[in-house]
Amino acid sequence: MPSEIHIIGIGGLPEVKAGDNLGDLIIKAAADQKTLIQSGDVLVVTQKVVSKAEGRIVDLSEVEPSPLAIQIASEHQRDPRHTEVVLRESKRIVRMDRGVIIAETRHGFRCANAGVDASNVEGQETVALLPLDPDASAKAIMTRVQEILGAEIGVIISDTFGRPWREGAANVAIGVAGLNPLLDYRGQVDPFGYPLRTTTIAVADELASAAELVMGKLDQVPVALIKGYPYPRGDTGIGALIRPAERDLFR
Amino acid sequence: MPSEIHIIGIGGLPEVKAGDNLGDLIIKAAADQKTLIQSGDVLVVTQKVVSKAEGRIVDLSEVEPSPLAIQIASEHQRDPRHTEVVLRESKRIVRMDRGVIIAETRHGFRCANAGVDASNVEGQETVALLPLDPDASAKAIMTRVQEILGAEIGVIISDTFGRPWREGAANVAIGVAGLNPLLDYRGQVDPFGYPLRTTTIAVADELASAAELVMGKLDQVPVALIKGYPYPRGDTGIGALIRPAERDLFR
Repeated sequence: MPSEIHIIGIGGLPEVKAGDNLGDLIIKAAADQKTLIQSGDVLVVTQKVVSKAEGRIVDLSEVEPSPLAIQIASEHQRDPRHTEVVLRESKRIVRMDRGVIIAETRHGFRCANAGVDASNVEGQETVALLPLDPDASAKAIMTRVQEILGAEIGVIISDTFGRPWREGAANVAIGVAGLNPLLDYRGQVDPFGYPLRTTTIAVADELASAAELVMGKLDQVPVALIKGYPYPRGDTGIGALIRPAERDLFR
Repeated sequence: MPSEIHIIGIGGLPEVKAGDNLGDLIIKAAADQKTLIQSGDVLVVTQKVVSKAEGRIVDLSEVEPSPLAIQIASEHQRDPRHTEVVLRESKRIVRMDRGVIIAETRHGFRCANAGVDASNVEGQETVALLPLDPDASAKAIMTRVQEILGAEIGVIISDTFGRPWREGAANVAIGVAGLNPLLDYRGQVDPFGYPLRTTTIAVADELASAAELVMGKLDQVPVALIKGYPYPRGDTGIGALIRPAERDLFR
């Protein structure tokens, strides 16, 4: 019997504000469009609405850029206040070249501008930061769905990251709850008895990528519900997806 | 109205052999499980069956390792014949460290072992190479589906690649036909009139990742059909997804 997965976009959320209970907003939006959230589903929520709900928005007019930020910005035609926020969000600069800053965030993510996002935030003078603890953000939504609907689900917080070597960005997971981000095939053999070479699959990233296909960038669909995928249950958190320095050839 | 995507695994293909018409095998397998292939669908096919159908299988007992391959293999507990094949498939070595070879293939892909795959090939003494021209592989399947079923579809050849910075591998596209791998948002603005920062999304990679969720590694499901995704039509080929050297900070 073929396995089949359904991915449903959930739109119609109101403009999210600091202090909103995102779980409640998602539950209401799903109900309004008659989408059932059921045990075994995976809910993928974009970072942008999480950051708004958690007040992770910075008004650039209140940012005083440091001399370093001013210097970087002037050399690369960047906004010095935006650059300042990026530096504050960075634990380590991975690359700074050709106007691009690839930084490691405090969570350990390596991404452009330390995840500081200038788009889709009210007005031109604000930027959105990544959630402080995206696993906790995911868990709060998971818990709320359990409380209100009685459904045991997995939750992924997603963001759109560029990648080395390949053009175009793709959605990845930056926070998880209820599901492990890696599916481990170690010790298993293929149909010919040969040990499987690729031992772990980053299923949280694949689920985040799949969800992006119904979200789009302009459609005001910040949430997707994935049905039919038997995700690995667990609570390792997103840390399991972050490659430790000693195994990273591209520091 | 929420957008909705369905992903259906297609299994039940016979063991694929060199010279097989893969399009015919997929059409029959889909029909056997009563999955309709319709215009607007995207068919994702794993590299392994494409390589088998195209005879891209190397018997390791016929490989004479070079002195370099022997040296690398002895230092890193690798099979010297496998290492030799990897070197032959490489246009450039990106990194060689800790027993890992990250190579650039002739197509321009940067991946472990130049895409040479020791798993899921009949017997322990063979390896599978990437298709010579994965876009052509995709086009042949697309054309066959058009001829037999009259359906105009997009086709993606997928492979499982590791990534810098993140643990776990994920499916990406290595060949496309009928669809452009990148969705371009340049010139578009968000709901607040702010220009979108992330201008292109690698939708072919996201579709490949989504397809992996129904394929698994052990389930003998080498094909997935994606319904409901309005993919960007076009024929830019997979080259559009490969970052040129001058834009690549991680050479």
